[in-house]
Amino acid sequence: MLIKGNIIHTMTKDAFEILRNGYIYIKNERIEEIGKDLNEKYPDEKVEDYTNQLIIPSFTDLHFHAVQYGNLGIGLDEQLLDWLNHYTFKEERKFEDLDYAEVVFRAALEHVIQSGTTRIVFFSSIHEKATKLLMDLCEAYHITAFVGKVNMDRNAPEYLLEETESSYQGTLRLLEHSEHVKGIITPRFVPSCTINLMEKLGSLASLGYPVQTHISENLNEIDWVKSLHPEYEDYLSVYDACQLIGPKTILAHCVYCTDQEIKRIKETGAFVAHCPTANLNLTSGIMDVKKYLDEGIQIGFGTDVGAGQTPSIRQVMVHAIQVSKVNQMKYPERKRISFSEAFYMATKGGGQYFGKSGSFEKGYSADFLVIKKDPLCEIRKMTLIEELQRFIYAGDNQKIDKVYNRGRLLHSNH
Amino acid sequence: MLIKGNIIHTMTKDAFEILRNGYIYIKNERIEEIGKDLNEKYPDEKVEDYTNQLIIPSFTDLHFHAVQYGNLGIGLDEQLLDWLNHYTFKEERKFEDLDYAEVVFRAALEHVIQSGTTRIVFFSSIHEKATKLLMDLCEAYHITAFVGKVNMDRNAPEYLLEETESSYQGTLRLLEHSEHVKGIITPRFVPSCTINLMEKLGSLASLGYPVQTHISENLNEIDWVKSLHPEYEDYLSVYDACQLIGPKTILAHCVYCTDQEIKRIKETGAFVAHCPTANLNLTSGIMDVKKYLDEGIQIGFGTDVGAGQTPSIRQVMVHAIQVSKVNQMKYPERKRISFSEAFYMATKGGGQYFGKSGSFEKGYSADFLVIKKDPLCEIRKMTLIEELQRFIYAGDNQKIDKVYNRGRLLHSNH
Repeated sequence: MLIKGNIIHTMTKDAFEILRNGYIYIKNERIEEIGKDLNEKYPDEKVEDYTNQLIIPSFTDLHFHAVQYGNLGIGLDEQLLDWLNHYTFKEERKFEDLDYAEVVFRAALEHVIQSGTTRIVFFSSIHEKATKLLMDLCEAYHITAFVGKVNMDRNAPEYLLEETESSYQGTLRLLEHSEHVKGIITPRFVPSCTINLMEKLGSLASLGYPVQTHISENLNEIDWVKSLHPEYEDYLSVYDACQLIGPKTILAHCVYCTDQEIKRIKETGAFVAHCPTANLNLTSGIMDVKKYLDEGIQIGFGTDVGAGQTPSIRQVMVHAIQVSKVNQMKYPERKRISFSEAFYMATKGGGQYFGKSGSFEKGYSADFLVIKKDPLCEIRKMTLIEELQRFIYAGDNQKIDKVYNRGRLLHSNH
Repeated sequence: MLIKGNIIHTMTKDAFEILRNGYIYIKNERIEEIGKDLNEKYPDEKVEDYTNQLIIPSFTDLHFHAVQYGNLGIGLDEQLLDWLNHYTFKEERKFEDLDYAEVVFRAALEHVIQSGTTRIVFFSSIHEKATKLLMDLCEAYHITAFVGKVNMDRNAPEYLLEETESSYQGTLRLLEHSEHVKGIITPRFVPSCTINLMEKLGSLASLGYPVQTHISENLNEIDWVKSLHPEYEDYLSVYDACQLIGPKTILAHCVYCTDQEIKRIKETGAFVAHCPTANLNLTSGIMDVKKYLDEGIQIGFGTDVGAGQTPSIRQVMVHAIQVSKVNQMKYPERKRISFSEAFYMATKGGGQYFGKSGSFEKGYSADFLVIKKDPLCEIRKMTLIEELQRFIYAGDNQKIDKVYNRGRLLHSNH
C-alpha cells in the first residue's frame, strides 16, 4: 500500500523530517520506504491519496489507568493520597463487575483511538478477569498495548487488598497474551506492595518481562516511602533492589527524582513516562523534562488518565511545553522544551518502548494519522510546520481524519 | 419559552445553584424565572425539553484578538515582544485586505460560538474598515460583543503606525454601532500609544465609553514602560492619568500588578481579564488570580487568542485552575482557585461586564448552553457537579449540544 501526503516525523528530538506530497510504502504492516514518486516505482500498489494533508506518526501513551476512565475530570480539587482514597480506589473496586468493566473499557478505547493514540500502556485494577477482558478488547480494537493487572498487598482498602501469592500468580497468568497485546508486571507503587511481593515480581522481570510502576510523583508519597523503608537510600533503590528496574521498565512521573536516581535510570535504560497534565491536576509538582531529554534518557508521555483529564497525547504535548516554560520561570537555570522535542516524545520517544515505532524510518510499524486540512492553511500561507503547530496546539479530535495502526485503518472521521 | 433540564449556575463564586430537571422561563430574551413545574404555571408556553441534560450559562471571553485567529497555535516558542514582531504585527497588517479579513473573522466567530462563548470583547487591528466589518459580522452571528479598533501611534512597524489624530477619529467613528455590538476604546498598550493619544482617548472614556488595554503581562514590557515614563509611579498610573481607568475598563493580564495597582483597580471598579493560557504560552508569568477574587475585584477570563491557542473558555477555566495550583506550589502562601470560582469567572464574573449576564437570575440575558449527556454519567452514577466537572475538564466542543444567546439558538450539534 502507498500513502500519499505531506509527511512529517521526528527521527531525532531536534529536527522534523518533512516530505511534501511524498509517499509512504507499507509492506507487511511496516514502513518499507518513504520518498517522492513511489507510485512510479510501485505502479501496482493501491494509493491512499491524502494530497496536501499532513501525515504524522500516531501517538504513544506510556501511562493510562483504564479503570479510571469513568473518573475522567472528576475530583481534581484533591491531592494524590486523598484523591486515591476518595475517588480512585472506590472506582477501581467496581471492576469486580465485568459488565461495568466492559462499558468503561470500550468507552476508553474508543476515546483513545479517536485521540490518535494507537500504542498504549495500561494499568488495569487488581482484578484478573477485568484485566484479561481489557487485553481482549485491545486486541479487538487492533491497538498495540501492554496491559497490567495491578499488584497491591498492603496499604489499600480491604476490598482492593490481595494475598501476596495470589497477586503474583495473577500477574504470572496474564503475562503471555498475543503478538500485539502483552501483559506487564504492575506493582502499583512501593507503599502498595510488600518487599516480598516486589521480589517475587522482580524474579519475573529478570526473565525479561516488562514492568511499570509509579515513582516520586508527590512529596507526601516520597516521605511515606522513606518512612516505610529507611533502609534504602532512595525511592528508586527499593525497586532496584527487587530487580524491577531495567530497559523494559516504565517509571511514571519522576517529578522529584534525585541526580543519583536519574543517573541510575539512565544506566538501566528504563523508560520515563512524563505526565504533566496529571502533575498539574493533583498539584504534584513540575518535572524538569528537559534534563531527562538532555541526559538521553528514554522518555515519552503519559496521559495518566484519570489524574490527567484527557486521553489526548496531543493535549499532553502542549501541557508539557507550557509546564516546561513554568519551570523556566521558576528556576532560570532550567530550560523549556521545544516543539520538536515534545513531538518526538509523543511519537518516537514513547514509541521505542514498543520497538520500532513512532517514526517513518524503514522497518518501523506503519502507525500514523492523517490530519484534516484547515481551510485557513492556504489563505494564511502556512508552512507545513505551522500547519502541524496549529493542529497540535489548536486542533481537536475532529481534526484527525484517519487513524492507522500497523497499516490498518482503525478510525475515520466523517 | 420554557427550557427544561438540569440547571446549574453560580450566582456567587463559592457555590453552585442546582435545579434538577427544572425550567427556565424566558421572556423578551431575558430570564423571567427558574423553578420546578413552570410548565404548569405557563401552560401555553412552548417547552424545549432537555430532560437530564445540563443547562449552564454560556461563556464570556473578555479578551480575544480577532485578527490573530489565523495565527492560532503558531510561533509559541517565542516571548511577548519578539512574538509581536515576528508573528503578530505581520499578521495584523493583512487586515488592510477586507477579503482576507472576512475569511478569518468568519472562521473565528464560528469557532467562538462552537466553543460556547456568546459574549466577547474583541481587539481588531488598526484598520477601521476591517473593524467595522467585524462589528457587522458579530451582529450577523447574533453574539453580544464589544469590538475595538486598535490605537497605535508609536513603537510599531511603519505599516501599522497611525497619525495621532486619525487614530482618535477612527475610534470615535466606531463607538456607536447597535444595541448588542458596541465599539470600545482600544489603546494597544502604553508602549504603542503616545500620551497625547491616550489623553484624547481618555477624554472619550470619561464620557462613559468602554476601554480595553493590556497591562503588566511580561517583565520586559514593564521595564519598557518604566523607561518610557519614569515620571509615573507605575504602569497603571500612566493609563489612570489619561482617564482611561474606570468601571468600563478591561485590563488584560495583570500578571505583575503591585499591591498599590491592585488597590487602585479595585477602587475604580475596572475589570480584569485573566488569560492563563496565553501567559503560559508566552512564558509571561503566573498571575495570583485567587488574590483578585478575594479582593472582590471584577474578574473574568480571556482566551487571548492568538497568544492563547484556543477560543474555548472551558479550556481556559481548566488552565486557570491548573496554573493556580502551580502558584500554590511555587508560593505556599498563595492559594489555588476552586472549581466553582473558575466556573463563576467563566460565566457571571466576565458576564457582568455586559450587565446582567452569566447566570440564571431574574432579568439576566438568556444566554446558555445545553450539554450532551455522556453515556457514562448514568452507569458511573455521577452527581450533577461531577457531570459538570467531566464536561469542563474532559469535554470538547462536540459535547455542546446547543448554544443560545438572548434566547435565540445560535448553534446546534448533530
